[in-house]
Amino acid sequence: MHFASDNTGPAHPRVMDALIRANDGYRMPYGADPEMDSVRDRIREIFEAPDAAVYLVATGTAANSILLATLAKPWQTIFCAPHAHIHEDECGCPELFTGGSKLTLVYGAEDKLGASALKEAIEAEETRGVHGFQRGPVSITQATERGTVYSLDELRSLTGIAKSYDLPVHMDGARFANAMASMGCSAAEMTWKSGVDAVSFGGTKNGLMGVEAAVIFDPELAWEFELRRKRSAHLFSKHRYLSAQMAAYLESDLWLGLARKANAACARLTRGLKQIPEVTMLFEPQANMIFADWPRAAHQRLHDAGAQYYLWAGELDGDDPDAPLTARLVCDWSATDESVDRFLELVRG
Amino acid sequence: MHFASDNTGPAHPRVMDALIRANDGYRMPYGADPEMDSVRDRIREIFEAPDAAVYLVATGTAANSILLATLAKPWQTIFCAPHAHIHEDECGCPELFTGGSKLTLVYGAEDKLGASALKEAIEAEETRGVHGFQRGPVSITQATERGTVYSLDELRSLTGIAKSYDLPVHMDGARFANAMASMGCSAAEMTWKSGVDAVSFGGTKNGLMGVEAAVIFDPELAWEFELRRKRSAHLFSKHRYLSAQMAAYLESDLWLGLARKANAACARLTRGLKQIPEVTMLFEPQANMIFADWPRAAHQRLHDAGAQYYLWAGELDGDDPDAPLTARLVCDWSATDESVDRFLELVRG
Amino acid sequence: MHFASDNTGPAHPRVMDALIRANDGYRMPYGADPEMDSVRDRIREIFEAPDAAVYLVATGTAANSILLATLAKPWQTIFCAPHAHIHEDECGCPELFTGGSKLTLVYGAEDKLGASALKEAIEAEETRGVHGFQRGPVSITQATERGTVYSLDELRSLTGIAKSYDLPVHMDGARFANAMASMGCSAAEMTWKSGVDAVSFGGTKNGLMGVEAAVIFDPELAWEFELRRKRSAHLFSKHRYLSAQMAAYLESDLWLGLARKANAACARLTRGLKQIPEVTMLFEPQANMIFADWPRAAHQRLHDAGAQYYLWAGELDGDDPDAPLTARLVCDWSATDESVDRFLELVRG
Amino acid sequence: MHFASDNTGPAHPRVMDALIRANDGYRMPYGADPEMDSVRDRIREIFEAPDAAVYLVATGTAANSILLATLAKPWQTIFCAPHAHIHEDECGCPELFTGGSKLTLVYGAEDKLGASALKEAIEAEETRGVHGFQRGPVSITQATERGTVYSLDELRSLTGIAKSYDLPVHMDGARFANAMASMGCSAAEMTWKSGVDAVSFGGTKNGLMGVEAAVIFDPELAWEFELRRKRSAHLFSKHRYLSAQMAAYLESDLWLGLARKANAACARLTRGLKQIPEVTMLFEPQANMIFADWPRAAHQRLHDAGAQYYLWAGELDGDDPDAPLTARLVCDWSATDESVDRFLELVRG
Repeated sequence: MHFASDNTGPAHPRVMDALIRANDGYRMPYGADPEMDSVRDRIREIFEAPDAAVYLVATGTAANSILLATLAKPWQTIFCAPHAHIHEDECGCPELFTGGSKLTLVYGAEDKLGASALKEAIEAEETRGVHGFQRGPVSITQATERGTVYSLDELRSLTGIAKSYDLPVHMDGARFANAMASMGCSAAEMTWKSGVDAVSFGGTKNGLMGVEAAVIFDPELAWEFELRRKRSAHLFSKHRYLSAQMAAYLESDLWLGLARKANAACARLTRGLKQIPEVTMLFEPQANMIFADWPRAAHQRLHDAGAQYYLWAGELDGDDPDAPLTARLVCDWSATDESVDRFLELVRG
Repeated sequence: MHFASDNTGPAHPRVMDALIRANDGYRMPYGADPEMDSVRDRIREIFEAPDAAVYLVATGTAANSILLATLAKPWQTIFCAPHAHIHEDECGCPELFTGGSKLTLVYGAEDKLGASALKEAIEAEETRGVHGFQRGPVSITQATERGTVYSLDELRSLTGIAKSYDLPVHMDGARFANAMASMGCSAAEMTWKSGVDAVSFGGTKNGLMGVEAAVIFDPELAWEFELRRKRSAHLFSKHRYLSAQMAAYLESDLWLGLARKANAACARLTRGLKQIPEVTMLFEPQANMIFADWPRAAHQRLHDAGAQYYLWAGELDGDDPDAPLTARLVCDWSATDESVDRFLELVRG
Repeated sequence: MHFASDNTGPAHPRVMDALIRANDGYRMPYGADPEMDSVRDRIREIFEAPDAAVYLVATGTAANSILLATLAKPWQTIFCAPHAHIHEDECGCPELFTGGSKLTLVYGAEDKLGASALKEAIEAEETRGVHGFQRGPVSITQATERGTVYSLDELRSLTGIAKSYDLPVHMDGARFANAMASMGCSAAEMTWKSGVDAVSFGGTKNGLMGVEAAVIFDPELAWEFELRRKRSAHLFSKHRYLSAQMAAYLESDLWLGLARKANAACARLTRGLKQIPEVTMLFEPQANMIFADWPRAAHQRLHDAGAQYYLWAGELDGDDPDAPLTARLVCDWSATDESVDRFLELVRG
Repeated sequence: MHFASDNTGPAHPRVMDALIRANDGYRMPYGADPEMDSVRDRIREIFEAPDAAVYLVATGTAANSILLATLAKPWQTIFCAPHAHIHEDECGCPELFTGGSKLTLVYGAEDKLGASALKEAIEAEETRGVHGFQRGPVSITQATERGTVYSLDELRSLTGIAKSYDLPVHMDGARFANAMASMGCSAAEMTWKSGVDAVSFGGTKNGLMGVEAAVIFDPELAWEFELRRKRSAHLFSKHRYLSAQMAAYLESDLWLGLARKANAACARLTRGLKQIPEVTMLFEPQANMIFADWPRAAHQRLHDAGAQYYLWAGELDGDDPDAPLTARLVCDWSATDESVDRFLELVRG
């Protein structure tokens, strides 16, 4: 019963196999490995973007922050949701890599950037000439940090606003595959066809050891990205081990398969939870993450049985066994029906 | 015949095995994996430093630059050799992570920081009050970028100068193991017992896929290092895969064994080259790297036979078959006697 | 009728006289002028802080941002009001000088930091370990950007919260003198006796050409401030001209006299406006600044008569003559009773 | 006998008069004062550059560093002489404002950038792909920090090299006027007609209280400069006092007149020194600065008589009265024939 995060589970066996295979013999370093050539080709194919710049890094924070630094000027502010990873969980990496950009928090829906809130936030900037920050990129997280997914309409509405102010759009796709699997659209539709300029295409949370692709649709930005990657120490000498993971991930659409597995486990868990009267869902889960309340006593049962997950609000210690505490549950590709069912049993009591 | 770099060869099979083992089941993320506990313990043991702060990152540039940022203030200059990796090969990562430090190049020996040159360089700073940079850390590369090794006396002489100005000392140990294997001293002797405050303890060039340990002997700096690692995007979520590599590396002193293999191959190559009259050694190889001149015609033979190495000076294309061109040859743990001997044969012609 | 800003009016004649006097003969540069010695002594006297570090810079943004960089680490967030100058009007100078700090906006009262909002904002940080920003300085603007003044009780309540988390407190005193004149307390009471650690003591808006003093009560931070001032290009070679202005400002409490004049003009304007039924005050003016609404037609009359001030909300162009538009009116020391009365006449119509 | 620096003397009376005049009445802030319009027009006229962007700041370090940040990318290195102000006397301001650029020191002549050394230094960069810094601006100091002046041929030779690599050229003109007065060429000839892209046009060392103009010949860079000026806190609210100084400086070519006075005093001093057998000149003074050796005993006489200047090498305390010590003598516009002659008398003994 491991629902703490999609970064606590194992990498997929095919990924490990690919690593072993890639370990054979010699390769030119720093991305000049032939594995990277295939990866680049395959990602361009998947995204239907034959000119896209494609690079690998090992952490999601690196992908996000180097991309944002490539898209933003130091005197520009980046528009994002208050719960965006770039704001809450990167300890200032975007600020460091951009050279001092600000993040303007757009308060809208609990889980998403809202179109009108975004427009308002953009309008509120550049009202003070040289004295204030200038408008910069819009960053959208897909799937969201709350387990929901922007529809294509929602995406286009946001990017349309960005475009009307001539602002570039970044997509934090740490859970890109889960969103794709949920939406059933193409990678191109979810990105450049919907007005996205650059994507952090995540692999780490979805069965890799630690690889993310940065995909930039305007190849003019490629060299700047490369320099920024190097000077932030994210260019790997033995790059083949990143390439090999990503190659395995893309091979036969493993990435989509794993995301579908994670989403399916999440759906099974959701269905089960909804049938339990004491459970309240906070959001409608659309990918691989659930936020839900249930009574403390049930949390205690889960805890005693060794279930792993984070309490989002409330504390296990407390007098009132009926008090609702909020759980965050994340399913990765390795979640089993058994662990889901056992978990549900324990919630039911 | 792969002598291009110690980052083009494979990882050691025991490292791959450890990865496979570590991939089993669930682990807490971000360094809270039990593998990291063993790594920390073992490194403290090896360094005889029970309080040392120990962290893992994936690239040597990250280890160097985060350590330097932890040791230096933005208005301090870092003293290093002109051929130091931090100056030549990190595209400004130290400058970025420190917030604008300068690197003061200490011109001394061709391969090493010289004691008197260092003293002179330190004396030349802080002569202009608030107008000039202030004196900051001294960074020493061991083994050097030229394949030589500082003796303990040389190290102590440099750190003694640093200490007399109250400056911290950083050791870039991308080839730490090769230096250790060459010197036959202990890790403690080569570091804190000789006045070194923080070490980049390399693994990537010596049989790992990509892991370096940052070791800081003053635990007071630990939290700052952690924050700087996170905000430069070098904290891994699935950290166990770094830990597992490093654990295998330390297990039964694999790290020293691999370095001894690399150094032995280099020694065999050196012995062979020295017997060839047309060859001139530029430095006396003490670790796993050789710089040597020989006639163009021989380079052409090697090239045609597929030997991999970099020309340090001169170009293969040219009229004069006798013109000496400089090769840089690097041996890693996987270099075989056969490839060394075949290489020598080709030089001989 | 110049009410656009306190930076559009002239410097006081005694300041200009002091400049002329200071221009006689030679002085050592970079703050080694004897005028600076008197300034330092006098400011220490005024603040009853014999050990305070005292430095001069030429802009308020410099004073604020260098002080904040001295108080904050790059991974700390600075707590301030959404309308703080450091957030809205410094185009990222705090972000640049700190090396990437964030500003956490504390939403409370319209004009002030609220104690409970501050506590809540501080509590909301450092909930994510190394992933999120760490808590940093609290910055308070006195007088506020809305023309009001924190009482000593309010100040102590805010600094008490900061202290309970061990956070330093910065005061943006661009209108320090206006606040003092309004409160009738001592400079020490408004600062260190109330828990403030460092102050931007403004002169530019109150009769100087362009000088602000940075006052730091912990002399341990002095040298860091000096280095940060120099490396941001705010150390003046011909420093005597800053010193001379500040010396004249402090002489016979000119600074308080000028602030009293500005506040008196503002009070006269306030009294007059309150008597006009069409006028609505947005805040209770306590220093030298008024925010008030009145009908468009009256704004038009003022505009036609050449009155200078900014419309805070609404636009002069429009159909409805009765629509209320918000004015921001700022009085400096040079505002005359005549100009105030003429202005009121025009509002009345 | 004040020869310590050109920043220890008074501002010119016409400058002070202009300040007094500018202090009358109200002006729009932040450079919207009408005085700035005239300054802009006049500087464009002087430089024969009708489209040039022209901005004022208060310190030479600000002018240099903001310009360099506008011309350079963070991953580019700036080529300059080892004795350049931007390297020795700005405590890392270029590094801070650029976001981490390096300064590559070009060792050539003792006082100047040498053409072949520059070419060699440029060639030595960009030899390591993404790993090393990329080539960035060339910065030339005119007049040099050693009191000499680049001829137009020398300038063109340097800028020609820069242009052949497509690198922009910055001129640190802290003593621009002294160089112009010495060369008898036009401002356009000394700058854009000779391949200079941006100039720090100094006033502070030549009779102003503290104003430098930043002149950029490519107006496309104007807005970036403005943003960088603001976010480094160098945009003045009461900007008219900068404008007024600069306007007086330009009026009737006061700037050239003052520089001629300073140069003439320096020439008189030079002539006198050359006639003294014990004196050795280190450079041929071409502007307002002299480096020369003479015996300790003569230095002692000067010291006892209150002469102000810096010892560049050697110390006054010492046993040997005949030992040569090096003086740096700087003449500003206010240096008198009497003080020069008295100084020479004392050297003679």
